[in-house]
Amino acid sequence: MASKLLGKQTFVLQNPPSFAGHACVVGKKEGEGPLRDSFDFITEDSFLGEKTWEKAESALVKKAAALALSKASLSSTDINCLFCGDLLNQCVGTTFGVRELGIPMFGVYGACSTMAESLALAALTVDGGFADKAMAVTSSHFCSAERQFRTPLEYGGQRPPSSQWTVTGSGAAVLSSEGPGPYVTHVTPGKMVDNGTTDANNMGAAMATAAYDTIRQHFEDTCCGPDAYDLIVTGDLGAIGSEILRDFFSADGVDLAAKHQDCGLLIFDRKKQDVHSGGSGCGCAASVLCGYLLNGMREGRWNRILFTATGALLSPTTTMQGESIPSIACSLVISKTK
Amino acid sequence: MASKLLGKQTFVLQNPPSFAGHACVVGKKEGEGPLRDSFDFITEDSFLGEKTWEKAESALVKKAAALALSKASLSSTDINCLFCGDLLNQCVGTTFGVRELGIPMFGVYGACSTMAESLALAALTVDGGFADKAMAVTSSHFCSAERQFRTPLEYGGQRPPSSQWTVTGSGAAVLSSEGPGPYVTHVTPGKMVDNGTTDANNMGAAMATAAYDTIRQHFEDTCCGPDAYDLIVTGDLGAIGSEILRDFFSADGVDLAAKHQDCGLLIFDRKKQDVHSGGSGCGCAASVLCGYLLNGMREGRWNRILFTATGALLSPTTTMQGESIPSIACSLVISKTK
Repeated sequence: MASKLLGKQTFVLQNPPSFAGHACVVGKKEGEGPLRDSFDFITEDSFLGEKTWEKAESALVKKAAALALSKASLSSTDINCLFCGDLLNQCVGTTFGVRELGIPMFGVYGACSTMAESLALAALTVDGGFADKAMAVTSSHFCSAERQFRTPLEYGGQRPPSSQWTVTGSGAAVLSSEGPGPYVTHVTPGKMVDNGTTDANNMGAAMATAAYDTIRQHFEDTCCGPDAYDLIVTGDLGAIGSEILRDFFSADGVDLAAKHQDCGLLIFDRKKQDVHSGGSGCGCAASVLCGYLLNGMREGRWNRILFTATGALLSPTTTMQGESIPSIACSLVISKTK
Repeated sequence: MASKLLGKQTFVLQNPPSFAGHACVVGKKEGEGPLRDSFDFITEDSFLGEKTWEKAESALVKKAAALALSKASLSSTDINCLFCGDLLNQCVGTTFGVRELGIPMFGVYGACSTMAESLALAALTVDGGFADKAMAVTSSHFCSAERQFRTPLEYGGQRPPSSQWTVTGSGAAVLSSEGPGPYVTHVTPGKMVDNGTTDANNMGAAMATAAYDTIRQHFEDTCCGPDAYDLIVTGDLGAIGSEILRDFFSADGVDLAAKHQDCGLLIFDRKKQDVHSGGSGCGCAASVLCGYLLNGMREGRWNRILFTATGALLSPTTTMQGESIPSIACSLVISKTK
């Protein structure tokens, strides 16, 4: 078989899979933000009728997956495999959310890059001929993330300005071997990058280097630059990480800023909503992609997007042990034409 | 492209990748067990010179990956992508172990099924033409697992007879598009199955249903049964789970017992070693596969193996919230011929 590897680390999809359906479900705060009209469902109840935050997160996943299937006019038995993951220990947010779907499953963990990673693997599986239809779903919940990674909400811990607000949300997308697009045409998986950042309240700074590494490599592998895209969107670098990323490219003489946006900055209005450096979490990139971005492509706002979700691969244990924060970023090209 | 999907959920690899190198690294207790001669390295020091159990686990990963690369006569720059994961929160055992390798990475989480899942994805990536060489590595460490999932070692908690002993070990395998075999010829990813087991000290009972579900589906998809294999090996069902699995097949009129072995029972001598129902952990199936099983195939002991690693997708949080234990199993056919 001819290699689908372009340059050092970019996969070129020869039969680019098409988005057959996509949906996003978010919490109240996200529903009050600038992207409110792009969400399929906004819950007023942070618990979604459940007794714990973890079960509430699973309820978000369940709803997003069901909506994506419904919008694709498919049932779970039509899906050949599912890629999913989240931020919770042992990925129980998604696991318990998709438990009843009965779809052959691959669990993934890429921290906040999980949507890009899941979607990339779903795309490779369809392009590789293994699946006709594959689904990707990820989630995060502000309350489950706070008590796991930081302190219980009741503690009322102070948040430094560099911190980001974990999005309560889930995004799900179904890819199909046939369809009118938009298509996933390229995947550039990322290498782990560690710039020595040790401040777990400044993950944008840790992840910016990973985003730079993957996007720069993507440009090199595909012999193109920002001009090839209508939009270059990162997962959740927030204000600080986004500035660092643009600075890195400026130093290379590349103007990223004209094309760059960040899901963590898009989803909240930082002037009106108290989210410090912006949104974050697996559910951030996922709910922005599965609503605002893919809807925008269908409406003709953009024809070609470079979607790069970023993840900080730390745990509370590694932080307490004085470790720095290795990060990763995974890029996908999403295009209206093959 | 012709579909590579056989039956409901089995992928047939058209250009089966070959094992180019594989290695396993274990702790002292594993090195005193029946498989001692199959391990590439046995550490006498549970800390491997590190200050914490988590860092010790990462050191195991680092060593296993380096040995697998060395045995394949490859360097990390030759590997197009890496699939890895472990049991620790946010998968930091493997993440920090592979941090310096600089290989494009996909993090996975499948609990104790992680080696099968990682290897399956590595095989699909090579077969799909995306990578010429891909690596899979997973790990577990008794001490990091105990303090995270159960109680700190110093607490000296009693273990019920149904409990399993988390293997201290890591296994790494490199797959290549070309080579003399053994080959990965089929992959059957598993569906999540929940039989209602709530006892986190009896994970064999939870996982047995998942193993049955995937293996039964594999037999159906490939129109064959146990006779098609020289060995059917499960990841870490232990004594209780293995008996349940064999009982399930007996009820179907299928004699699995004659061909079935379990990595959790192979790695320890339950008469001499105090491991209750047997070994477990991502490092269990990984270190048995990357030593005893693949070495045995090279030595002509078996020509065709069905390797099925099983995972219990619980977390301490879900257990405390009264949830049952959803489980999963992923099967691969490893064959000396294509």
